[in-house]
Amino acid sequence: MASFLHDFLAPDSIAIIGASADPTKRGFKAMTGLLKGGYTGTIYPINPNADKIMGIKAYRSVTALPTAADMALICTPANTILSLLKQCGENSIKGAIILASGFGEVDETGAKLEQEVLRIAQQAGVRLVGPNTSGFFNLHKQVNLLALDNVRAGDIGIISQSGNILLALALEAESNGHIGFSVYVGPGNQADVGFADYLEYLGEETNTRVATFYVEGFKDGRGFLEVARKTSRYKPVVVYKSGSTEAGQKAASSHTGSLAGSYQMTVDLLRQVGVSVVENSDEILPVAEGLGLLQQASGNKIAVLADGGGQATIASDRIAEAGMELADLSDATRHALHNALFPQASLTNPIDVAGSTDANPGLLAECMTILSNDDSVDIVFLVGMFGGYGIRFAEELRQEELSCANAIISLAGMTDKPIVIYSLYAHVNPEPLEQLRKAGLPVYDSIEHAVKIMAALSERGAYIQQSPDVEQTTAGPVIPECSQLLSQARSHNRDLFEFEAKSLLRHYGVNLPVELIIRQDADIATVLNTFSNTPLALKVISKNILHKSDAGGVKLNVLGSEALHQARVDIIDSCLQYNPDAEIEGVLVTPMARKGIEVIIGMSRDPAFGPVLMFGLGGIFVEVLKDVAFRAIPLSRNDAISMIDQIKARPILEGVRGEAAVDKEALVELLLKISAIVSIHPEISELDLNPVIAYDDGYAVVDARIIIEQTVKS
Amino acid sequence: MASFLHDFLAPDSIAIIGASADPTKRGFKAMTGLLKGGYTGTIYPINPNADKIMGIKAYRSVTALPTAADMALICTPANTILSLLKQCGENSIKGAIILASGFGEVDETGAKLEQEVLRIAQQAGVRLVGPNTSGFFNLHKQVNLLALDNVRAGDIGIISQSGNILLALALEAESNGHIGFSVYVGPGNQADVGFADYLEYLGEETNTRVATFYVEGFKDGRGFLEVARKTSRYKPVVVYKSGSTEAGQKAASSHTGSLAGSYQMTVDLLRQVGVSVVENSDEILPVAEGLGLLQQASGNKIAVLADGGGQATIASDRIAEAGMELADLSDATRHALHNALFPQASLTNPIDVAGSTDANPGLLAECMTILSNDDSVDIVFLVGMFGGYGIRFAEELRQEELSCANAIISLAGMTDKPIVIYSLYAHVNPEPLEQLRKAGLPVYDSIEHAVKIMAALSERGAYIQQSPDVEQTTAGPVIPECSQLLSQARSHNRDLFEFEAKSLLRHYGVNLPVELIIRQDADIATVLNTFSNTPLALKVISKNILHKSDAGGVKLNVLGSEALHQARVDIIDSCLQYNPDAEIEGVLVTPMARKGIEVIIGMSRDPAFGPVLMFGLGGIFVEVLKDVAFRAIPLSRNDAISMIDQIKARPILEGVRGEAAVDKEALVELLLKISAIVSIHPEISELDLNPVIAYDDGYAVVDARIIIEQTVKS
Repeated sequence: MASFLHDFLAPDSIAIIGASADPTKRGFKAMTGLLKGGYTGTIYPINPNADKIMGIKAYRSVTALPTAADMALICTPANTILSLLKQCGENSIKGAIILASGFGEVDETGAKLEQEVLRIAQQAGVRLVGPNTSGFFNLHKQVNLLALDNVRAGDIGIISQSGNILLALALEAESNGHIGFSVYVGPGNQADVGFADYLEYLGEETNTRVATFYVEGFKDGRGFLEVARKTSRYKPVVVYKSGSTEAGQKAASSHTGSLAGSYQMTVDLLRQVGVSVVENSDEILPVAEGLGLLQQASGNKIAVLADGGGQATIASDRIAEAGMELADLSDATRHALHNALFPQASLTNPIDVAGSTDANPGLLAECMTILSNDDSVDIVFLVGMFGGYGIRFAEELRQEELSCANAIISLAGMTDKPIVIYSLYAHVNPEPLEQLRKAGLPVYDSIEHAVKIMAALSERGAYIQQSPDVEQTTAGPVIPECSQLLSQARSHNRDLFEFEAKSLLRHYGVNLPVELIIRQDADIATVLNTFSNTPLALKVISKNILHKSDAGGVKLNVLGSEALHQARVDIIDSCLQYNPDAEIEGVLVTPMARKGIEVIIGMSRDPAFGPVLMFGLGGIFVEVLKDVAFRAIPLSRNDAISMIDQIKARPILEGVRGEAAVDKEALVELLLKISAIVSIHPEISELDLNPVIAYDDGYAVVDARIIIEQTVKS
Repeated sequence: MASFLHDFLAPDSIAIIGASADPTKRGFKAMTGLLKGGYTGTIYPINPNADKIMGIKAYRSVTALPTAADMALICTPANTILSLLKQCGENSIKGAIILASGFGEVDETGAKLEQEVLRIAQQAGVRLVGPNTSGFFNLHKQVNLLALDNVRAGDIGIISQSGNILLALALEAESNGHIGFSVYVGPGNQADVGFADYLEYLGEETNTRVATFYVEGFKDGRGFLEVARKTSRYKPVVVYKSGSTEAGQKAASSHTGSLAGSYQMTVDLLRQVGVSVVENSDEILPVAEGLGLLQQASGNKIAVLADGGGQATIASDRIAEAGMELADLSDATRHALHNALFPQASLTNPIDVAGSTDANPGLLAECMTILSNDDSVDIVFLVGMFGGYGIRFAEELRQEELSCANAIISLAGMTDKPIVIYSLYAHVNPEPLEQLRKAGLPVYDSIEHAVKIMAALSERGAYIQQSPDVEQTTAGPVIPECSQLLSQARSHNRDLFEFEAKSLLRHYGVNLPVELIIRQDADIATVLNTFSNTPLALKVISKNILHKSDAGGVKLNVLGSEALHQARVDIIDSCLQYNPDAEIEGVLVTPMARKGIEVIIGMSRDPAFGPVLMFGLGGIFVEVLKDVAFRAIPLSRNDAISMIDQIKARPILEGVRGEAAVDKEALVELLLKISAIVSIHPEISELDLNPVIAYDDGYAVVDARIIIEQTVKS
């Protein structure tokens, strides 16, 4: 138990600061929640003007308590917090939950107050939940500070940056009837305790089977990734990240003051560390339930068993859209199904029983067993009206359905393949479905949701199947020449010149062609010698010229002595016309790259997530279609492969119109090298290879740009 | 009342052929459904072996009936149908519903039987529903042949190619508690009556406010489009089309024998005629309900009023993802909201009341009224816990919520803007929400679904705002030279040569550059005269060479007399080497087109939907990204504009990297011309302009291909 949050999130005693008998006060709600919830620990109402609140002895202040409380819930306004925290410190309270708003989410003054609150808390040795939080519950400890009605203790742990989202999930669970929660915390502004801490805590919290997050913005995204990478191996982590659009990001920012960051980047990075990302709010609870109850899948091949053709068709569409496949059933399986079902049953996945089960629903369990024994099947998906045969066809079938439910339950216990069930009767919750649910088998009321769960199970399986010691690129030794290039440029208040950036890359093993610099006319002879009949690209070298093309600083396809001389003169003339004060170091000469597929590799340092690598196809694919993939650095080989595979234009890399596929392995190596270089040189703040031309045998880095951190630009 | 279906889908008397007292028979279920449903018409059980069934006088056959029945439900197997239909004809029964399967959905023999059934029915004057249908209900006539329990009469009409989908929707409505149905028909194999007929019928059926379809495959898609174009102006038409993936298409085909056709094409064509296409099965009922109850929106600007920041953020994301916008509220609106709410409320859309309503939920109606009065707002979206204040905060608030609900109801009655409501408490259905629902205001339990409804309302509004007499291109007069070109080519068993295709296009006003043909060496002088210093493209003309480039039949950028002579010789040599028997007519010479944006325009005739036009960007956009748009011919100007606007790569047409936008008006004109040409010449079976190069001033058609119908290829 490494998380400090255990010290106060399963409290044996709670001080309610601002406890009140006035039903309009939040201190009333907290008292009610504890009392109605049957809390067995000690409650210390704190109120300077009362001796008793709801029949419980009250204290003027926490300093007056007979003994230390495990935690304090502070229900009073923002301006009272500083002194209260000092008092909490004096009482040795380990953690305080601050409900008040009026801090960083409001304005600069609020942000300053929040900083001050944090400073005082640290001095006092008190950890903070909030401020601006809706509170906390731990239902297995009967702590229900939100006084939510009808919320069941269960195994879903929730951290939600919106109290009303928690309320919505609780109401959804209530109507669903069989989902319960372990712990909820509203992190609020995360002045002190942040998402990474909560994840570490939920990872250890023994009543929690799945850690679920509603996130408007990560402050320490990198920290969250690090904890998630470990946690998601043994406990599912579900995240709904809001702000998928600019409109949503603005709304989130006015709600919790969160900076949402790039949505797609966040999603890519979360998936990289095994987090199950949910993209619609009405899928949060179904996916969390499914991941909590079902084992991960060892692949993405689904066997669909349906008693209705329409549902079989819809399921097939959604499965394919989710990037999964209908399992190609073995002959043995088809033979066994043939023996079990009517001749008109469709034995090609999706299986349509075509009436075989109308009078005999028990056959469904039999077929599910057959399907689960097929090696080509990773998940068995029952689709249709199971549970409703006794309602729709004949009352007598109810009994057979109950036996069938039992058979399904024992099958689920024996097979390591997830059994996922959609039923038309899920809403109605007839006895057979109730029985499945009681045994921990979820029953979904939407094919769409069920397919999302299967996708999550399969994605999670793929993550866990990676070696637990995924080899990420390591920093490795610094090459002194490279450090020198960087520090020298920095001392000149500039970023690396292109040729320096390329030189750095070359030092670390990136494959780059020979390049030469023409500093004076005499250098042209060497160039001609070296490149003889190759068409050349010439680019100006000047710290004062950022957009070389605009300045006329680039000439392509230059061939022969005369053209070379002329091109050099033209470049210099043109650049000096563009910026008369430009210091021109020379002209960089590289052989023209042959035609291939343009890709872009870029690294930047995200304020929340640290160094992040981006990969995409060049030009309009990045600029117009935003078809890119992100991974946090350091990358594993698998990360590099998956980020190439992820882009929608992938078929282009694999060869269209009879062209050969590009050398993917070379691109993977390049991505891994960049990952390593970025780890070795924290002083690199941005790195862009744009474009890299990918060939069927390797690649050519045509342009490279390295920006140095804290360079004071002249 | 034009539809013949009224004659028997609101029957005053029903013959149940195969009526039975055996609960395992379908003839039992039909009897039960009628009796339990309180059917007030006459029931004629038909059974050769019974005098009475369930207490009702039975007849040996329909020919023994004392009078004609309005309709017959035939519950007996496939092999009995032919003779039964003859008997129905003798009794003057107007329509028969055939439940039996074993027809076209099974195999060739079945398909032949189905043809024979249709022939006999036509002879007998009996219209057919099915075969292979789950049946029919008309709840306002108390006709419930499916014997569904707990299904309410209401205003949603459903045509579903899967009985279990109907059952799922009925169960969903039951759990929802306030949705009801008017008429259901399972069209089965559509041997006779098809989707277009059902739509015409539902359009006229007075109890139906929204016509809803679950479709696996259209047989007469063109007919459906024609009826939908008219119907959707006055009654919403909702379609869920299965087969969005190859996996789903295969499943559908084994279910109803349907050929699904291209999903994206079908969706585009349905939207073209004002159909609301639903893409997830769990959205069918919510969208149908919303479209049935709410008026269409006059735009896509949403005002979000939320009492929870999380929900406000999620709503904003989904609204933007759906292509809608948050309304930019006027100063007057913000001022009025400021006066109504706490100072900390966020007055930038999405409005977050920030606690203002906790003790005063009535404010919500006030704010909704303010928002509905803002000209920039098209839809008012209430998001949050309305209905649950009395549960969550204080019992006393229930009364205020009820008044608020009343205020919302009168607002909805007065404003012409849709009021859409999402509530966390929708599942719980507290009194205030019950009141809204009774007044015909839907309350959604998912933000995602509510946003889909808003998108449907706004799309429908846009459709209806088009002039009701949308001007589609008309066939116009045939140009005799063009007919001659086509008939001449056909008589030679070939399609049009490229130069002929271009000539045809030119005749109908498509803008094409001058082209020449070199048939003999002497023609080269004319070419040089005409094009002087322009680089030229040369292409072989031969009916035996389809892939000109592969045959070496294309030379580009040819300039000057010598090069021209050589290119011609090379082309002929190369083509004869490729195919020694090729008849070479000559070489087509066109000026090289200058650089621009490549687009593709293609027309083909779909077996179900007839002539369809496709538009997309050239190369990988079509081939890899499938980024194309379809419209049924004839097109209106609006169709042409919207199909260009629809493609994802649209920003490229609008100019990226500082390039000018292409001349969209010219492309629109080109699309309309092609639409007209295709209408004028039904003998054209395919037409491809690939590529067309779009410029900021017009376009160049680089290649054109016209395939003639029924050409016997040599």
